[in-house]
This record gives sequence, structure tokens and C-alpha cells, in this order.
Amino acid sequence: MQPTTHTQHKKLNQQPFYLESGESLPFVQVAYEIYGTLNADKSNAILVTHAFSGDATAAGSYDNNENFGWWDKIIGEGKAIDTKKFCVICTNTLGGCQGTTGPIFINPEIGTHYGMSFPNISIKDMVNVQKAFLEQLGITQLASVIGGSMGGMQALEWGASYPQFVQSVIPIATAMKHSPQQIAFNEVARKAITLDPNWNKGNYYDATKPELGLSIARMIGHITYMSDKSMEYKFSRRQKEGSFEVENYLQYQGDNFVKRFDANSYLYITKAMDYFDISDRLFVNDNLAKIKFLVVAFSSDWLYPAYQSVDIVKKLHQRYVPVTFCKINSSYGHDAFLLETSELTKLIKPFLEAIIGISGEIIADSCSIG
Amino acid sequence: MQPTTHTQHKKLNQQPFYLESGESLPFVQVAYEIYGTLNADKSNAILVTHAFSGDATAAGSYDNNENFGWWDKIIGEGKAIDTKKFCVICTNTLGGCQGTTGPIFINPEIGTHYGMSFPNISIKDMVNVQKAFLEQLGITQLASVIGGSMGGMQALEWGASYPQFVQSVIPIATAMKHSPQQIAFNEVARKAITLDPNWNKGNYYDATKPELGLSIARMIGHITYMSDKSMEYKFSRRQKEGSFEVENYLQYQGDNFVKRFDANSYLYITKAMDYFDISDRLFVNDNLAKIKFLVVAFSSDWLYPAYQSVDIVKKLHQRYVPVTFCKINSSYGHDAFLLETSELTKLIKPFLEAIIGISGEIIADSCSIG
Repeated sequence: MQPTTHTQHKKLNQQPFYLESGESLPFVQVAYEIYGTLNADKSNAILVTHAFSGDATAAGSYDNNENFGWWDKIIGEGKAIDTKKFCVICTNTLGGCQGTTGPIFINPEIGTHYGMSFPNISIKDMVNVQKAFLEQLGITQLASVIGGSMGGMQALEWGASYPQFVQSVIPIATAMKHSPQQIAFNEVARKAITLDPNWNKGNYYDATKPELGLSIARMIGHITYMSDKSMEYKFSRRQKEGSFEVENYLQYQGDNFVKRFDANSYLYITKAMDYFDISDRLFVNDNLAKIKFLVVAFSSDWLYPAYQSVDIVKKLHQRYVPVTFCKINSSYGHDAFLLETSELTKLIKPFLEAIIGISGEIIADSCSIG
Repeated sequence: MQPTTHTQHKKLNQQPFYLESGESLPFVQVAYEIYGTLNADKSNAILVTHAFSGDATAAGSYDNNENFGWWDKIIGEGKAIDTKKFCVICTNTLGGCQGTTGPIFINPEIGTHYGMSFPNISIKDMVNVQKAFLEQLGITQLASVIGGSMGGMQALEWGASYPQFVQSVIPIATAMKHSPQQIAFNEVARKAITLDPNWNKGNYYDATKPELGLSIARMIGHITYMSDKSMEYKFSRRQKEGSFEVENYLQYQGDNFVKRFDANSYLYITKAMDYFDISDRLFVNDNLAKIKFLVVAFSSDWLYPAYQSVDIVKKLHQRYVPVTFCKINSSYGHDAFLLETSELTKLIKPFLEAIIGISGEIIADSCSIG
């Protein structure tokens, strides 16, 4: 297995691939990137799980250094997740639209795009795809699984479902289950998509796409990703060309989003998030006591408020599971998990180095960023 | 002038009616209700200003006691705004759709509905309509002007523009200007309306109305009116018929809203709110020093956070204007201004009674609720 500089694709051997619901997909393709090199005994792998609209490009620079992976300040040589020590793997999520099987894929059984015939998926299904992918690489244990927002849900799911597989779990700005407010924001976003006549019950792949509806959904999302304070700082009430700058910004974000994201993926993935509820099964397995947890929240994150991370910590305490918790002071709102990289580094880097110490693994010196 | 038990209508004598923009309306009709009786020297009038989707029916019971005015627990005999002492007047706002001239009206110059040919309006235009209406009733001074949310903006505008006219001002759960977050929520709601193909650039009055778009706008609004905590208490993650209860609730609120509200009014009124900014002209007139202020905020209101009320109080302090400020502890979010009637009564009732004392007016005993 070699580090990848660009997203690559692999079909899972499990064909068909069974889902939690009992339904199945004829096959699942996984889009992935790898940074750093797996050591001889395959013990230095870290899975990075992306947020709901993210992709496998977590690190590296592209387009002549104009674009960077969404967590490039966290992943790399000498960084929080040090690719000289760890082999970092990021896959696009099941149900997504950045290379892993999702509604935009052709259903081989009918010869057209899945659209809304794509089966319902869960956060656990996403994790099961990741696990099958890792096993196909010969990896049977992760030094850590780390992610923010929906990525944090997947990290928690890993800890609950496959405690033998993970040495540590780092859920960031996330929750054991969505509150009604979180569900409500997702629901109005979904309503905006399905209101767009171009959505056409999900059959738009060979026609005009529901860009306006998806754009509104993204605009709603962006409001919830920022804090009141960060919006004030960034836009205040400044106007430009007859509009408030905040309006232009949201429009710009919406317009850009529709170029890269699939409306049906939005529907399926947000549903998976809303139905995710790990609160009753997170720490019922005593094996979990071997896992180290680092739970991180941000003070101004009102979409995934810090109390939801505290709830995770309380559950861990009830099961005598070791946990480090930190609420980072930040004005960035939910976006902080992407932006507060300096503060995150202070937490993640020593935590992961301690994991290496605990595991007693000797990390190969030959690792390099992909 | 007699108390009214149901909404009545009156055309303003000012024809045409000029707006801040310089544009004009051929005439303005005002929908109004009056509770209590005006005393001989017309000194006991209180103007109640409604929130953006409200109407003139602030008090009283209707439909065999099945429905009540939106502030019936505040306005009535012996209540916070005591109709035995005060003559309470509530008018539907300019640009609205509950009887006062708005986009749904027929433009007499073209013989069809105004729609998007309705001129842009401001919060000050709304206040100017109220003032013209009051003057037509022979009222030249108000004991108080009181309102929540957009009603609070109007109350502030009264204090700034017509300080000689008002003895006291009670802005509740409001702001001197919208923050970018408040603008952003309004903007995505407007986008949802205009995305609906039935909106048809505002020309839908003789066709199918943009019910889906308006419903989504209202759903977004409802999320912002409640607090995270009140949603958790009301819905948690309970499901019914395959949906989360919070989803069904929002849908129900959206469906009900489209029966009573006009989509174009939504566009015009939210724009007036977004462009309202009284921060530079609120207390530049020393006459204001005669006005008593009662400023009220709610602890869990994140749409109009308490700091915005504190900003009002700071401005008042800078001008040596007497002000009572209270942040009421409540879990209801922005809706608290409609629901925390018991706590509001403790503040409003003695404040208004003190105003009577200050003014030295003898209030007629013959007042009765309309």
C-alpha cells in the first residue's frame, strides 16, 4: 500500500454489501487518500472521518498550492497527526458524492442512477464500509479514529461497535444523538431541496439539477456553522451592491456548494445523522475500557453545543473509561473544528504520542506524506 | 371612538401617503382594534405594536372562547395593561396582510394587486401610519408604546422620531439593528419563498399561492423562535408515523401559516426589519430625557439575544435617559415575549401605573374591555 497524492478508488470485496436495514448494495466503491506509510505490523494507521459534506482529500495541496485538504493544517509531517509517525487514511463516506458509492452512482441492476432508490443508510453503515475497506488493506487495528461533526459520530460508532479495532477515539464538536433543534435545521434544508421543481423526486442526473434548493440548504447550514459573534466580526452590517455582505457570502457559499455536492446525498446523509443515537449503546461493552478518549468541544459552537460533548464524557465516566475532555475557547462556532487548528494541535499531538507509547509500537522512520 | 370587539378598518386622511423613500401610496387603510375607553383629554392611550407576523387582534376571545388575541394575557381588566385604566390600541402593520394596506391590496392605479410593485417600506413608515391613524382619532400623546420583536423596533422608532408623542416606551426582546445572523435567517427564508415556482415574481393572487416556499420560511422562523432547551422539552427525539415530532410540528406550523399570511408581505416586512438601524439616531434628541423606558430581554432568546437589549440600555445611559432593564429567566427562547406573561406582568403593570402617577392624569372609571 502506497501513500496517495490524489483520491483513488477501490471496490470492496464484500459483494453484495449488506446494510443495517437488511437491504444491500450490489457493490460499494470507496474513494480514499492515504498520507504517510503503514509500518510493518500495520499498527500505525489512523482513520480520519470527514464531516457530512467533506471528502477524502483531508490533507495535501492541489492546483499549484491554491487548494488544500480540509484538514491539511492538522495532518502532515510534524503536525498534530504526524505523517512521519502515522499512516493516515481518509475515505469518502458511504452515501456521499465524492467517489464513494451514493445516490449519484449507477445502480447496475437497473442501469440508471440510484437517486431515491438508494437504500436508507446509517452512521454504522458508513463505519462498516470504512472497516471493510481497512480490512481489505490488511489493517485490523487503528491507533485512532478521529473526526469532527458527523466524523465524530462515526468515531463514536467505531468505539461502540468495534472496540477491539480502535486504540483511541477522538470525537470533536459532535453528539451522541441529534437534538430536535439539529433535526429541525436538517429538515428545513431537506424541504428546500425537495421544493425545487428540478429535484424531480431525485431524478435530475440527466437534466437540470436542483441548484436553487440545494443552495438554500447550504445557506441554512452555513448560518449554523458560524457563531453570532463570528458573523458580526466578518460582515457586521456592511453592504455591497444593494445587499448585505452576509447575504452575498451565503449566496456565494450556496453557489459553490452546488458545483460539488449532490442534492440526494444531502438528503440521505442528513437523515443518517438525524437517526443516529448511540446514547444507549455507547459504552455497554467493557472492552471499551481499553480505549482512550479525547473529547473536544468549542465554546461558541451552538449547532453542536459543548453540553453534548459533556454528555459523552459523563457516559464515559459511568463506564470508568479514560477520557480527556477539553472545551476550546473559540468565536468560530461549529466551524472551529476546521479553523482552530493550533489549539487542536496542542491537544491531539500529545494525545496521539501517548497512544504510541501505550501501544509500544516502534514507528517506522520512513513515513512520508502522500 | 368606541372600543371594538373585532377588527375594524379606517382609511387614513393623508392621501397620498408618503413614505420615507419618497415614494407614495394612493391611500392607506388601517386595520385596528381598541380595548378600553379613551378618557376625556385623550391622555390614557397605549399603542401595542405586534411582531412581524402578528395582527391587530391583540386581546379578547373569539370563536366561542376557542381563540384569543395574541397578548390577551397581558391586555385586559386588571391585567398588565389594564383596560380599566388605559385605552389600548393595536393596528395591523403597514405592508401586512391582516387588513392594513400591503402587497395583497389592489393598487387603484393599475386595478390589480400590488404584488412586487408595492414600494419598499421601513419601520419608520409603519410608525408613521400608526401616528397618522392615532391623530385621526384625535390622539396626540401616548401613555406608552409597547411591543416585542418587530413591535419593539417600532416602539424604539417612536421614541426616536416622535419623543413628544410618547410618555414611555417598552421595547421587548428586540434590537436597535439586526445582526448579520438575524439578516441571514431572514434571507434564507426569503430565498425559500422566491424559489417556489408558484411565487411567480409575486403574481400569484389569482392563482396557486407559493405555499411550500412560505411554509419553509415559517419553519425556519419557528426554529429561531424556540430555544434548544424548549425544543428538547417539547419534542425530544420522539417519533410519530415515521417522522420526528419536531418535524411534524414544524410542518403543522408551516401549513397553518400559509392560510393566514401573504408571501409578499413576508418579503417586504423582513426587509424593513433588516434595514432598520436606529443605533445612530435613537437618543440624539434631548427631549427623549422625558421618556421613561422599560427594556426587557429573555435569557434563552438567541434570535434577539439579551446583549442587544443591553446595547439599548447603554445608549440610554449615555443620554441620561431613565431606564428600567430586566432580563427574564426563561427557557422559551424568543417566544418568551408571548409566553412569559406572568413575569412580564410583574414588570409592565407597576411601570405603567407609575407613568400614570407621573403624568398626573385621572383615569376614567368607565373603561371596559372591548
